[in-house]
Amino acid sequence: MSLNSFGHLFRFTTWGESHGPALGAVVDGCPPGLALSEADIQPFLDARRPGQSRFTTQRQEPDQVRILSGVFEGRTTGTPISLMIENVDQRSKDYGDVAKAYRPGHADYAYDAKYGFRDYRGGGRSSARETAARVAAGGVARLVLPEVKILAWVSEIGGDAIDMARFDEAEISRNPFFCPDAQAAARWEALVDEARKSGSSLGAVVECVATGVPAGWGAPLYAKLDAELAHAMMGINAVKGVEIGDGFAAARNTGEGNADPMRPGSAGPEFLANHAGGIAGGISTGQPVSVRVAFKPTSSILTPMPTITREGEATELFTRGRHDPCVGIRGVPVVEAMMALVLADQKLLHRGQCG
Amino acid sequence: MSLNSFGHLFRFTTWGESHGPALGAVVDGCPPGLALSEADIQPFLDARRPGQSRFTTQRQEPDQVRILSGVFEGRTTGTPISLMIENVDQRSKDYGDVAKAYRPGHADYAYDAKYGFRDYRGGGRSSARETAARVAAGGVARLVLPEVKILAWVSEIGGDAIDMARFDEAEISRNPFFCPDAQAAARWEALVDEARKSGSSLGAVVECVATGVPAGWGAPLYAKLDAELAHAMMGINAVKGVEIGDGFAAARNTGEGNADPMRPGSAGPEFLANHAGGIAGGISTGQPVSVRVAFKPTSSILTPMPTITREGEATELFTRGRHDPCVGIRGVPVVEAMMALVLADQKLLHRGQCG
Amino acid sequence: MSLNSFGHLFRFTTWGESHGPALGAVVDGCPPGLALSEADIQPFLDARRPGQSRFTTQRQEPDQVRILSGVFEGRTTGTPISLMIENVDQRSKDYGDVAKAYRPGHADYAYDAKYGFRDYRGGGRSSARETAARVAAGGVARLVLPEVKILAWVSEIGGDAIDMARFDEAEISRNPFFCPDAQAAARWEALVDEARKSGSSLGAVVECVATGVPAGWGAPLYAKLDAELAHAMMGINAVKGVEIGDGFAAARNTGEGNADPMRPGSAGPEFLANHAGGIAGGISTGQPVSVRVAFKPTSSILTPMPTITREGEATELFTRGRHDPCVGIRGVPVVEAMMALVLADQKLLHRGQCG
Amino acid sequence: MSLNSFGHLFRFTTWGESHGPALGAVVDGCPPGLALSEADIQPFLDARRPGQSRFTTQRQEPDQVRILSGVFEGRTTGTPISLMIENVDQRSKDYGDVAKAYRPGHADYAYDAKYGFRDYRGGGRSSARETAARVAAGGVARLVLPEVKILAWVSEIGGDAIDMARFDEAEISRNPFFCPDAQAAARWEALVDEARKSGSSLGAVVECVATGVPAGWGAPLYAKLDAELAHAMMGINAVKGVEIGDGFAAARNTGEGNADPMRPGSAGPEFLANHAGGIAGGISTGQPVSVRVAFKPTSSILTPMPTITREGEATELFTRGRHDPCVGIRGVPVVEAMMALVLADQKLLHRGQCG
Repeated sequence: MSLNSFGHLFRFTTWGESHGPALGAVVDGCPPGLALSEADIQPFLDARRPGQSRFTTQRQEPDQVRILSGVFEGRTTGTPISLMIENVDQRSKDYGDVAKAYRPGHADYAYDAKYGFRDYRGGGRSSARETAARVAAGGVARLVLPEVKILAWVSEIGGDAIDMARFDEAEISRNPFFCPDAQAAARWEALVDEARKSGSSLGAVVECVATGVPAGWGAPLYAKLDAELAHAMMGINAVKGVEIGDGFAAARNTGEGNADPMRPGSAGPEFLANHAGGIAGGISTGQPVSVRVAFKPTSSILTPMPTITREGEATELFTRGRHDPCVGIRGVPVVEAMMALVLADQKLLHRGQCG
Repeated sequence: MSLNSFGHLFRFTTWGESHGPALGAVVDGCPPGLALSEADIQPFLDARRPGQSRFTTQRQEPDQVRILSGVFEGRTTGTPISLMIENVDQRSKDYGDVAKAYRPGHADYAYDAKYGFRDYRGGGRSSARETAARVAAGGVARLVLPEVKILAWVSEIGGDAIDMARFDEAEISRNPFFCPDAQAAARWEALVDEARKSGSSLGAVVECVATGVPAGWGAPLYAKLDAELAHAMMGINAVKGVEIGDGFAAARNTGEGNADPMRPGSAGPEFLANHAGGIAGGISTGQPVSVRVAFKPTSSILTPMPTITREGEATELFTRGRHDPCVGIRGVPVVEAMMALVLADQKLLHRGQCG
Repeated sequence: MSLNSFGHLFRFTTWGESHGPALGAVVDGCPPGLALSEADIQPFLDARRPGQSRFTTQRQEPDQVRILSGVFEGRTTGTPISLMIENVDQRSKDYGDVAKAYRPGHADYAYDAKYGFRDYRGGGRSSARETAARVAAGGVARLVLPEVKILAWVSEIGGDAIDMARFDEAEISRNPFFCPDAQAAARWEALVDEARKSGSSLGAVVECVATGVPAGWGAPLYAKLDAELAHAMMGINAVKGVEIGDGFAAARNTGEGNADPMRPGSAGPEFLANHAGGIAGGISTGQPVSVRVAFKPTSSILTPMPTITREGEATELFTRGRHDPCVGIRGVPVVEAMMALVLADQKLLHRGQCG
Repeated sequence: MSLNSFGHLFRFTTWGESHGPALGAVVDGCPPGLALSEADIQPFLDARRPGQSRFTTQRQEPDQVRILSGVFEGRTTGTPISLMIENVDQRSKDYGDVAKAYRPGHADYAYDAKYGFRDYRGGGRSSARETAARVAAGGVARLVLPEVKILAWVSEIGGDAIDMARFDEAEISRNPFFCPDAQAAARWEALVDEARKSGSSLGAVVECVATGVPAGWGAPLYAKLDAELAHAMMGINAVKGVEIGDGFAAARNTGEGNADPMRPGSAGPEFLANHAGGIAGGISTGQPVSVRVAFKPTSSILTPMPTITREGEATELFTRGRHDPCVGIRGVPVVEAMMALVLADQKLLHRGQCG
């Protein structure tokens, strides 16, 4: 799992920068014989695509994926699947400010400290554009998991949470926030608009649930399903926290309150609760696998912030131009993709070891 | 990073079960020439050792580590370091209940679903005894990081948090809770005692800060320092949530509130805040690296809970005998060990790629 | 080192098939700050390029490499370098024969047995076209190794060997066989021409020597420099044997005859022989690292051979059209590339562990 | 596959030195439910055990293996299997010579160059004692492969080869050379005795064939079955060459002579030859998988050889005491073990990807 690759058996490697000619993913280890065309992947890219509402960045990228290898006569061959997405809206702008000074909160300073050097155009490799490659790879991973349904949504923006009693799955695709609670969506419209207009930004929480995962996926001890999910989610741009099941709420609970008792069911055990989020000892229990992911507010804001130049002089920077007032929103398809990628890998690993 | 190994260049593999003859870790990729003896590792094992107060399990394990390879004339040779700890207090008890039925909340059912079979004695491989092997490996990792100071503590038990204004590092080793706030420690004594007496259990939050980490460790995109930490921490028994820096609080903040502005300092940049927890774009910034970890209350409680037998019949189970009323407490040395193991690996990775 | 990736720290992944739109490599873990443009890679691709003499396949591929990521302002950024080469001469021909029956000696049957399915156009993924991607990646690896000189040549075709007494490095680029012995080159011209005209094919031996490798690269025990080289070379299409240093000749020697005595030299030890091929205990000794690689004759011949159809019926097949009468010849730049890729990786690994 | 681990899904890590207290292997990823006890492993260790005839080193090691984890009620649990073998005959001798100067041909100088330091007692980590750990791990791997029969033998010592026309499998266990040709065994007795008495040493070639491997194991392109075997074999101490099938002889052949034609058989295709050694395109064909391995003569000889001291002064060294006059002989169980370890891993990998 080194550097720009993820996964063990179902493994992908991504490449590309915000302002390069293209970006892509190479998916390796995919089972053969799966029906796959660009049309299977494109909807997920479309969901993540910027510029679709005023609540996301106005950069216009069609994000059309091309499959360059690994598919023959409409089916996967078992060899590497190369996916490429061209960048078309690398707007020519003046990067003088950013080239000379570090945007606070961004990876600028850390990259320079590491590499002595950085591609400063739009964040280079650290740009959230890379997540398009993950989403494309995730589209392939979903084909490996016909038994699993993956659903993510925004459950909180800027501290304003949805009411789970009003959860309506159909609502998620009806508003620009992937919000399952119509009333919250209405409130967020005002909230995010205000942030956008004032050049501020807001954090968000994304939840994701995978149903249909059979008991037995995952492995002790360093390939635990929850550890892999935590790795996958924490590696998404702007993510600062990950919870499995009840997460931090479990830390405030008692053993009785946190219990997931079982009783005989029609098909295997029936659980009376799912505080564990579908994972025990790092292995799936057959219950829905649930994860919550905290996205920080993007550091790209209009308010000037103190920072330093590459030469170490004091200066101030603010972010001109296009940015996401709430990056967590477009995190929804990315979180879904990472869930699919982890599960596909764990499915193959389980089959490999246990037959 | 497959199954029972962790790390890329500084890599360890653990083995052993709760009730086997021994458990251990093989540490591979350690730099040569470091002074190492059992005495360098033992203090960390002693900190984690059970049976030291009435607030942890009463199982008596001396947890004496033996170095079986990789050290010559008191120095690491660069070849694998085999560490072994014998189990001496595998109390002979009746495992009939546990062999026949699944303890709810434990890994029993998931292991059986995966392997068709499990070592039911004390949880087998899923027992927190395995964390002794991590702590031993962590003792070696610390030698790789003389420039880094790692400190963890319990910041919350059962929802009762410390007051950071009363934070006193020296206090941590003075009470059985690794609590830096003397007043909280006093409150927790009553709280945990009550749980212990009633056969209940409590969750906890552990915080860990590493100071002295230079800017530049970590790597885009799937070996991000924060992703690796999340993996490491989420893989610890009973952990259900991980936050870097402000974590979920960042999701409720604005871009202005969450900013970490910089100004010129005497040695590199000086940061005016550390909401990011010392990591930007997956790479260390030179600020303290901070992580918060949520431990659930152990599922071993005296209250009988509905469950099923291996044959799928309804039954009830409760946990007799020794257990930790708050497993998070002994999580402190484990969290420190995982922090050291991740950082040692990232230090070597950085040196490998960037010289 | 799974499936379509190779290397630990300096790691590359290749993708693409003989008759797909393109093929490529993603190079990950490359040190930052190295000057890199397409012009640094193209000469190695040109050396491997088909259609340059009548002794190789007549497929016309310009093999122009494009760098799609990982380079900014002419220097490597430390992030993934995506290299792409378009296929332009996938001649439209009738693949009916090959689609229905298995070419003996080719991977056709094995691929079908594995995947239940195969891309039969020109061998699909098993085609030697893939080696273009390795050669491109090798061009990047060379930048990591300014201290090392890598030189390969054909030392034997169809059992006719060069005379080392006539070894002339300058000669290698003067004939279409990468032959350092002008007299052998003259003989091979007739030999290979005869094979070409009769639709037969010939095997070859390629030797490769890397000078300037310092003592200390490689690692016990499963990342041994010689084991990695054997892996790298045996994975090249058509390779059936690998020797380090004296190889099989050492198995026919005595301890005295095979000794590499040392004496003090001006810069470290001076070796009086190099039977070991520059590697002892899996670690470089500072002497030239030498490897010999056996290429089988390609199975694409004009003589019809008995085989079976996908349905299991008896039939016969022979190879129409373009093919290499001696694939070993074009193996020279591929062997050099794999040597560079192994050494670059081992250099970084050594630096990572040992500083 | 880094440093002291080998394998992808079925993976093992070894540790230990020649003169440490013990050595061992941790086998990870083993399928659950396999019947395993020490008695399943011990026969393979016994075959490799030194001191059984005058033709191998006289070091007396019972090489009793202990299983410390991963087995419960006689069956593998799917969790790591820790195998330990104690060293009992680390004869206390004077290592003054070896500590001060480098034994030519051994890893002494290379280790020092790498690590700045080495365990000079009996070669430390570079000693062939490590192969005991591989053989133990190989004993576990065999359980994963009930369908496969693995057989190795010595085919050549000091250039004196067996006559395949006299191949008799039963003979292999009847002489101290693992020789399938009784007449060759008789000749070797004199040959090796002479080398032993004169303090010289001889090289050898070991052949290994695995029958019962189904078509479809292995994977393009960097996990090719032949590449993995080459890695595995070349990593054995003293090995300098590896051939698959006809190996270097194929390089001297024509396409017609090297063909493996097929015809319909009762169960799948029937091959009319096996020049390929059971592997095409890196994937097994269903034919016997065959490999040949060249062992150099050990560098431990009585003839003094020029060398240098750690300080760089000229000196001479010869090897006192116990050594193998022909290390290739005891390589037979090691080659079998590595074959089993590679095949077990590839079986699981294939099952993981292709179901």
